[in-house]
Amino acid sequence: MAQSDTIVAVSTPPGVGGIAVVRLSGSDALGLALAHLSVGRLEPRRATYCRFDDLDDAVAVYMPTGYTGEPTVELSCHGSLYVQQAVLQALVDSGARLAGPGEFTMRAFRNGRLNLSQAEAVADLIDAVTPQQHRLAVSQLRGGYAQKLKELRQQLLDLTALLELELDFSQEDVEFADRSQLKALLATLHEQLAALIASFRMGNALKRGIPVAIVGKPNAGKSSLLNALVGDDRAIVSDIPGTTRDTVEETLTIGGITFRFIDTAGLRRSTDAVETMGVERSMKAIGEADMVLYVHDLAQPFVRADITALPLDGKHLLLVGNKCDLPQVQLPEGFLAVSAKEGRGVEAIKEAMLAAVEPQSMQQVLLSNPRHYDALRLVQQALGHVQQALGDGVPADLIAVDLRDALYHLGTITGEVASNDILDNIFSRFCIGK
Amino acid sequence: MAQSDTIVAVSTPPGVGGIAVVRLSGSDALGLALAHLSVGRLEPRRATYCRFDDLDDAVAVYMPTGYTGEPTVELSCHGSLYVQQAVLQALVDSGARLAGPGEFTMRAFRNGRLNLSQAEAVADLIDAVTPQQHRLAVSQLRGGYAQKLKELRQQLLDLTALLELELDFSQEDVEFADRSQLKALLATLHEQLAALIASFRMGNALKRGIPVAIVGKPNAGKSSLLNALVGDDRAIVSDIPGTTRDTVEETLTIGGITFRFIDTAGLRRSTDAVETMGVERSMKAIGEADMVLYVHDLAQPFVRADITALPLDGKHLLLVGNKCDLPQVQLPEGFLAVSAKEGRGVEAIKEAMLAAVEPQSMQQVLLSNPRHYDALRLVQQALGHVQQALGDGVPADLIAVDLRDALYHLGTITGEVASNDILDNIFSRFCIGK
Repeated sequence: MAQSDTIVAVSTPPGVGGIAVVRLSGSDALGLALAHLSVGRLEPRRATYCRFDDLDDAVAVYMPTGYTGEPTVELSCHGSLYVQQAVLQALVDSGARLAGPGEFTMRAFRNGRLNLSQAEAVADLIDAVTPQQHRLAVSQLRGGYAQKLKELRQQLLDLTALLELELDFSQEDVEFADRSQLKALLATLHEQLAALIASFRMGNALKRGIPVAIVGKPNAGKSSLLNALVGDDRAIVSDIPGTTRDTVEETLTIGGITFRFIDTAGLRRSTDAVETMGVERSMKAIGEADMVLYVHDLAQPFVRADITALPLDGKHLLLVGNKCDLPQVQLPEGFLAVSAKEGRGVEAIKEAMLAAVEPQSMQQVLLSNPRHYDALRLVQQALGHVQQALGDGVPADLIAVDLRDALYHLGTITGEVASNDILDNIFSRFCIGK
Repeated sequence: MAQSDTIVAVSTPPGVGGIAVVRLSGSDALGLALAHLSVGRLEPRRATYCRFDDLDDAVAVYMPTGYTGEPTVELSCHGSLYVQQAVLQALVDSGARLAGPGEFTMRAFRNGRLNLSQAEAVADLIDAVTPQQHRLAVSQLRGGYAQKLKELRQQLLDLTALLELELDFSQEDVEFADRSQLKALLATLHEQLAALIASFRMGNALKRGIPVAIVGKPNAGKSSLLNALVGDDRAIVSDIPGTTRDTVEETLTIGGITFRFIDTAGLRRSTDAVETMGVERSMKAIGEADMVLYVHDLAQPFVRADITALPLDGKHLLLVGNKCDLPQVQLPEGFLAVSAKEGRGVEAIKEAMLAAVEPQSMQQVLLSNPRHYDALRLVQQALGHVQQALGDGVPADLIAVDLRDALYHLGTITGEVASNDILDNIFSRFCIGK
């Protein structure tokens, strides 16, 4: 293994707690740790109780090859601000360097312990709040998604091999077989790629929360419905980083899946006058949504054309008839009856929301990473060129260029090819200590 | 060892991080952990890489006798909110109970691994932000303070033994020797006790921050001086829990010692008109302070009687002559020249503040716990009775009652005698997971 400088960080969450874990990784991790510990040696993988200088009691564990793929020492010490800071300082004074965000995982990647897609999954895993977010990250780390990328790569390599076979015979100016095997392989690959790319909408939505637009005529009770839906969910919501930070968005978690109500600022400033969300704004909200809740005031006449006019473009549509507490109202077909005012029917809406997305969300392989999405689109593009070229009878050596292109873009996902810029960008997302 | 139910908690700081440690302690800790782990056994003290259900990768360490004095398993898993919550939930579903604040340490106490004073020191250790707070806690956990309590107890026991010797011969109606040995022992004990009690003022001040009052006539520049002193220290200050939470207090850390400026609300609302802190208020601030900064406006006539009138009662007094930037001012004897406006002389004040308390702060044994202080006062009281009784020739059996009283109160500190109320009160201060 190459020599590496030794990095150090607190790997546990920032703040005060019972214990904190300081992690050292690098060629000299063991030596640097032992210089401060009251024991003369650390047996590999054995939790050893000792003193760290005069500072604190610690439990030290040495791994000759740790998470990073290099010598690693983990020190559990008391979780006070003082101890954490002082232990770090002592190790830095001895020659360790403070680790940057994600630097341990970057080393794991550079040492071949994880590919780049898996490394990214580690960050997603740590950020996960809902079961779905967790499931997506685990799938990317070691599950169906990781497997799918491997398969795609293998198929691309198979294609290349077939094409090279043709190239080997190219001086004989023979077009190999009838290229039917090539075409069949390519068609399969294309199909799988298209399915994976198509899953991004759901994968990304699950990761960030399914975007939902609440629309309807003025006074239909959209803001009351929003209140009734998210009323009890605030506590959970406040824990989810990113979802509510930048924009005024309400979120709701049902059955482990997070829904994100978009463009609700107007709804929340909810005198009925202000609720009059302009048509343009409604259309914009629908455009950004994966699911549309259309709210109809049951006390008003129902015009089905209002709904058919919505630019749904294949999005989930849930029809809600509000004010069912009023006497003698009639529920149009396909509508769920609700009284936002009295809280009636709210659970049925939540069930319908969940039912609309749950089957898709349980799909084994979902693409959730925007960077991967972009790369797969480029793979798709390159394969499109290959497909066209095969049809046009273009020579194998020209087709090979496009295939190499496809392999290259797939390689940026798993990190076979990755520039330092890409790596820096990816690992800066991480917390320090991971 | 007695059977105990198995408790579980996240022992690392709350929040998101690279890793989090879940700790299980109790008779069934190993069994409960293994029910979820992908390995069939855990070798004692060996860090074992495994899966926790389908949920996460984990490193598990089993200690037959852990920190608590009972079987303990520590699981390092990914530090996401989801993983932490899900691992806890899974273990609770299997029969573990969520630990209350300090419950691990309470078990360590009940199982004789720590005495009560040491258990309290663990909480102080975790709360420590400054080196001094840390040093105090370590001293209480295993240093000079813990040793001093042992000595006091041994001396009390020696006294009791001497007295019992006399009681053994009491039927012969002989007063043993001339009680001189008793009196000598008692005198030594009294002296040590008095020194320890006297150290509380400094110990408590170091723990909470040395209280400093800034006083002086209207327009002397008290608020400007405060601003000049704490100006750069804000970042550190905000990390110190408790010091600024309840009252408007400014703090300043010099050489590892925290100073707390008391009753600065008036100073901060600092138009010069408001700065006119009433005399009564100044007196109150001085009463609560350990150190007084007296600010004199060098442009004004100096009257030494203003200073001698201050109710200092042995507190540190620092004399500051402000506005030394003005031309032709004269510095009275014993004053430090400063220009709060221009920031001149501020470092000299800080040095003087530190110099005034540092020697005392470095004392080996400092009492810092208010509960211990109260108990030691009661010990002192009981020994006072013994001393008087010895002088009055009171019979040994009556004196023994007071000695037992002294031993009892000393025992409340280390926990030889401790009610559940006291224990609940002490451990509720802890964080969960310790």
